[in-house]
Amino acid sequence: MEKWRIISSRLLRHSSPRMMIGTSQNHGFGGSIQRSGSKDKFGKAERYFEHGKQNVETCSHPLRDSVGNLQIFLARNLYKTCRIHCRSFASGAARVQRNPSFSTINSNDIAFFKEVLGEKNVIQDEDRLLTANADWMGKYKGSSKLLLQPRSTEEVSQILKYCNSRHLAVVPQGGNTGLVGGSVPVFDEVIVNVGSMNNIMSFDKVSGILVCEAGCILENLDSFLGNQGFLMPLDLGAKGSCQIGGNISTNAGGLHFVRYGSLHGNVLGLEAVLANGTVLDMLGTLRKDNTGYDLKQLFIGSEGSLGIVTKISILTPPKLSSVNLAFLACKDYFCCQKLLMEARRKLGEVLSAFEFLDNQSMDLALTHLEGVRNPLPTSMYDFYVLIETMGTDESYNKEKLEAFLLRSMEGGLILDGVVAQDINQASSFWRIREGVPEALARAGAVYKYDLSLPVEDMYGLVEEMRLRLDQSAKVVGYGHLGDGNLHLNVSVPDYDDAILAQIEPFVYEWTSKRRGSISAEHGIGLMKANKIHYSKSPETVQLMASIKKLLDPNGILNPYKVLPHYVVSQA
Amino acid sequence: MEKWRIISSRLLRHSSPRMMIGTSQNHGFGGSIQRSGSKDKFGKAERYFEHGKQNVETCSHPLRDSVGNLQIFLARNLYKTCRIHCRSFASGAARVQRNPSFSTINSNDIAFFKEVLGEKNVIQDEDRLLTANADWMGKYKGSSKLLLQPRSTEEVSQILKYCNSRHLAVVPQGGNTGLVGGSVPVFDEVIVNVGSMNNIMSFDKVSGILVCEAGCILENLDSFLGNQGFLMPLDLGAKGSCQIGGNISTNAGGLHFVRYGSLHGNVLGLEAVLANGTVLDMLGTLRKDNTGYDLKQLFIGSEGSLGIVTKISILTPPKLSSVNLAFLACKDYFCCQKLLMEARRKLGEVLSAFEFLDNQSMDLALTHLEGVRNPLPTSMYDFYVLIETMGTDESYNKEKLEAFLLRSMEGGLILDGVVAQDINQASSFWRIREGVPEALARAGAVYKYDLSLPVEDMYGLVEEMRLRLDQSAKVVGYGHLGDGNLHLNVSVPDYDDAILAQIEPFVYEWTSKRRGSISAEHGIGLMKANKIHYSKSPETVQLMASIKKLLDPNGILNPYKVLPHYVVSQA
Repeated sequence: MEKWRIISSRLLRHSSPRMMIGTSQNHGFGGSIQRSGSKDKFGKAERYFEHGKQNVETCSHPLRDSVGNLQIFLARNLYKTCRIHCRSFASGAARVQRNPSFSTINSNDIAFFKEVLGEKNVIQDEDRLLTANADWMGKYKGSSKLLLQPRSTEEVSQILKYCNSRHLAVVPQGGNTGLVGGSVPVFDEVIVNVGSMNNIMSFDKVSGILVCEAGCILENLDSFLGNQGFLMPLDLGAKGSCQIGGNISTNAGGLHFVRYGSLHGNVLGLEAVLANGTVLDMLGTLRKDNTGYDLKQLFIGSEGSLGIVTKISILTPPKLSSVNLAFLACKDYFCCQKLLMEARRKLGEVLSAFEFLDNQSMDLALTHLEGVRNPLPTSMYDFYVLIETMGTDESYNKEKLEAFLLRSMEGGLILDGVVAQDINQASSFWRIREGVPEALARAGAVYKYDLSLPVEDMYGLVEEMRLRLDQSAKVVGYGHLGDGNLHLNVSVPDYDDAILAQIEPFVYEWTSKRRGSISAEHGIGLMKANKIHYSKSPETVQLMASIKKLLDPNGILNPYKVLPHYVVSQA
Repeated sequence: MEKWRIISSRLLRHSSPRMMIGTSQNHGFGGSIQRSGSKDKFGKAERYFEHGKQNVETCSHPLRDSVGNLQIFLARNLYKTCRIHCRSFASGAARVQRNPSFSTINSNDIAFFKEVLGEKNVIQDEDRLLTANADWMGKYKGSSKLLLQPRSTEEVSQILKYCNSRHLAVVPQGGNTGLVGGSVPVFDEVIVNVGSMNNIMSFDKVSGILVCEAGCILENLDSFLGNQGFLMPLDLGAKGSCQIGGNISTNAGGLHFVRYGSLHGNVLGLEAVLANGTVLDMLGTLRKDNTGYDLKQLFIGSEGSLGIVTKISILTPPKLSSVNLAFLACKDYFCCQKLLMEARRKLGEVLSAFEFLDNQSMDLALTHLEGVRNPLPTSMYDFYVLIETMGTDESYNKEKLEAFLLRSMEGGLILDGVVAQDINQASSFWRIREGVPEALARAGAVYKYDLSLPVEDMYGLVEEMRLRLDQSAKVVGYGHLGDGNLHLNVSVPDYDDAILAQIEPFVYEWTSKRRGSISAEHGIGLMKANKIHYSKSPETVQLMASIKKLLDPNGILNPYKVLPHYVVSQA
C-alpha cells in the first residue's frame, strides 16, 4: 500500500479544519472580506455591484458567525453607491417593476401587527431592516419598512390572512443564506422571519424521525441529533446560519446528497400556511402514507411562493462512526466517470461523497489560498477526485477503501492518490475542493454557473467554453460529480460585456439542449425567474403558474421570484 | 457462534424458493385457487363476494404467471353470482352512483379510436373486456365496453383530448395488480391500458439512471438492470405483472423500502398526459434540479386521477453481491423495537429489510402452509423478526451480521435465531413471513388492514383489538417494522357484521388518533375514497380536490377514486 502516502501534518499546518469554516479561515468571498478588511477587498465588492450584468456568487458558504455584522457592514457600504435602485441592477434577471396591485404599509397595519405579535416582534428599526433587506452577499437589496417575527403557526396564519386581505406583499425569510435573491424583498414587501420558531418538538429514536419548527438552525438540529446517535440527512457550508424551513423551501442539496438523496425523499411531513392564512397540516411522521396526493412535495423547493413552511417532520439516518477520505489524481474526465461507476459498485453502501476538480481549479486553489499544499506534489494532473466513505466499522471500511483504490490504480483509473490519516488531513483535502470559490474570487472577476447535467456530457461544456473564450478567460470546472452537478466558472481580470456575450445565452442553451438544469441546487429566486424556460417546458411552467394562482390568488407570497414574470401576469 | 444453528436443507425441502412465487407454490389467495381448483376454494371465493362489507384482500402477491387466465376464470365465475352490481357491493366504500355528466360510448367514438389507434388496439371483445373490467382478486368489477391500447404518448394524448371533449370517463390501467380497486372501471369508463408502451429508452451506466415507458413490467426492468450491475429500487411480490407506470401512480412501497426509500426520492422525471391531452414533459434525468415546483411529485401516488404517466426516469442503485438473512425470536414487542434501533445503528449501511410477525401469525403459517417448518423449533416465542442485509463483501457482511446478532442475544434482545446458509434457506425464511396472508386465507374469513403507525404504538392496536374481540376472533399482527407498516388481520370462521362493527370504525379512529395512515402502501382507490379524512385534514383534502379540478376540470380521469365523493362534487 506504499502508493498511499501519508501527508505530514507539518505541511498542512496552515489549512483550516473543515469544521471551522466561518472562522477567520473561512471559505469564500464574504469571509475574505471580513478577514482582510482591506479597501482593496471592498473595492472589489463594490465593483461587483456597480457592474450590471454579472453573477456575483463568489462563494457557496455564507459566514457561520457574525453574519449579521457582515451584512450590516456590507449593506451600509453598498447602499452608498447603489441606493434603492440596486435591486433592479444587481442581476440581469432582476429588472422588474413593482406590482401596483400591492398596497403599502400604513399605521393601521402596524397597529394590527403589534396587537397580534407584540411590540418587540414588529421591527421598524433601520439597522435591523438594513440587514433583513439585504442578502448575505449584498447582491440583492430590498426596501422593506417592516420585519415581522412570528413565534407560532397561529401568528403566521394571522399575518398572512391580514396581508392577503390588504394585498400586502410578503417575503418569507429564514437564515437568509440563499444565493439567488429568494429570501430578501425586491421592493417594500413585508419580511416575515420565522427564526423565532425554533423549537424541537419531538424525536423518535426508534424510527429516527425528527419534528421541529421551521426556524431551527440546521447545525443546531445536527448537534441535537448527534447526541442521540443520528444526523441530519443534509449538510451545507451554511449550516451555522441556515434554517431548516429555508432548506426545505429551497430543496437544499449539499455535501451528502449522493448518500442520503433529496429532501423530497427525506421530508416526511410539513405544516405550511397558505396566503389566505389557511394552515395546511401535512405533518405526518410516517415513512409510508399513500392516502391521496402528496401535497407537501409542492412546498419543497417552491421558495416560499406557495406558502410559509412552519413545521417539519424529517427522517434522519443513524450517525456512523467511520469516515474516510481519499484525494486522487485521474488522467482524464473519462477516468473520473469510470471511477465513479466503479465506486458506486464496489464501495456501494459506504460511499458518501464523490467530488471532482480540474487542473485549473487545483491551480487556482494552490495559487490563491493561504496554507494550501498539493497532497500529490510530484506532478500536476488534469483531474482530481475526492472520495469519502461513511460506515459502521473503522478498520474494515478503511481497508475496503484502500483496496478499492489499489485496484483502481492497477486498472489505470487512478494515477496517484493519498488517504487522509486523521481529521486534520481530511479537512485539508476538503479545504482544496471547498476553497475553489474563494480562490476564484481572489483571482479576479468571475462568471459562475451552477448546472446539473448528464455526467457523461458534463465536462464537455467546460471544454467548449475554453474553445469559445480562447485566451480571454480562464475556464474552470469542479463540483459534485456523484450528483451530476457542475460548477462552471469563468475567471477574468475584470467584468467584460464582450466576454459575457460569449458565455450567455450559450451556457443556458448548451445546458437546455442536454436536458440539463440551469439551477442544480441554488433555486430560481429572483436571479433566474425569467430563465426557467431553459430547463422546463412551456406546459410545465404554465401549470406552475396555475398552481401558484390557485394557492395564492393575489400573488402576495414572495412576488417576482421563481416564476417568469410574463407567465405570472397571465395566470 | 453455536447459537446460530444451520437448518438442514432436508427439513426445508417442501419450501418454495422466494424467487418462485407465482408458481404452483405461489403465495396467496389467487395462487391457492389456481392450484387447487377445488370447489371448496371457489366456494370460499364466492362467499367473499356475496358478503357486502368485508375487505377481501387476502394476499399481497398477485400471480406472476397466467394472471390473465386466472382473471378471466375468476371474473366469469363471479359474474354469475355478482353481475353488474358487484362493483357497488364488494366494498363499503364503493357505494357510488354513476356520474350522469359522463357520456356513453357510441359508434362515432369507436370509429375515432380505430382511426387513431388502429383496429386491433380498440378492444370490444367480451372475454378480453371481462379480464380488464375485473381486478386480480375479483373484488372490483366494472362494465366497460371499451379497452384502448395506445402505443405512444401521442396516442394517449389524442385519446384523452377526445374523451375530455366528449365527457367520456377513463380508467388508466397498467398491470392491474392493485388492491384497492384503483385500476378497474367502476361503471362504463373507457379502459386505457398502457401495457403496449413498454420500451426501455435509455440507461446511463455512469449515473444509474433508467428512462423507460410506463408499460414496462417491473421484473423485466429489474432483469435488464441486473445485466448492467444495477437493480430497481423497489421490489414487490407482484413484480412479474405490475408495470412501472402503475407502481409510480400508486407510489408502491415493497420489500426494499427500508433501504432505498420512497419513489418520491428515486423518481427523477416523468412524462404525463393531462385530461385535456396536454403532454407534460417533466422527464428530467438529473439527480438535482431546482428550477421551479417539482410537479412530477403530484403524479406519484395520485393513482391516475391527475394524468396518465407515460414515461419514467428513475435512479437505480448498484446491485450488491452479498445478501444475508436472519430469522430471530424476541421476548416482546419492546425488544423488537429496540432491535430495530440497534440494527439501524450497528448494521447501518447494509440493513435492507426488517420485518416482524407475532406468535399468532407464526402459528397460522405453521398450521396452514404446506412444507413450512419452524426454523426455531425448540419453543414458540411471542415475536419473530427477519433481518436482511445487502452489501458488497460476502464474508465480511456475514460476519458483521452474526456479530451483531451475538451481541443482541447477549444483551437479551434476541432469545434465539438462525442465519440462512444459502438461498434456499433464505427463501424458506421469507416463505414464512410472506406466507402469512395465504395462511390467513386458508384459515377462514379475514378482515385486513394496511396501516402506517409510529413504531412505538404499532403493536398496541393488535393488543387492543384482541381485548375488544376476546374469543370471537383471532387477531394477528405482522409487517414491515422497519417502515412502521403494520398488517393487522382479524381471522374469523365466517364474516360476521357484529364482529365487523367491533373492528370499524374503531381501527380507523385508533389510527387517526395517532396520526397514522389508513393506507400505508396500497393507496386509496375506490375502497377508501370516503375514508381519507381519517388520515388527512379537511383543508388538505379540500386542496387535493382543488388540484384535481385544476388538472381535470371534467373529472374524467379515474372517477370515484382517491378523493371523497362529497369533496369532488363540491370542488
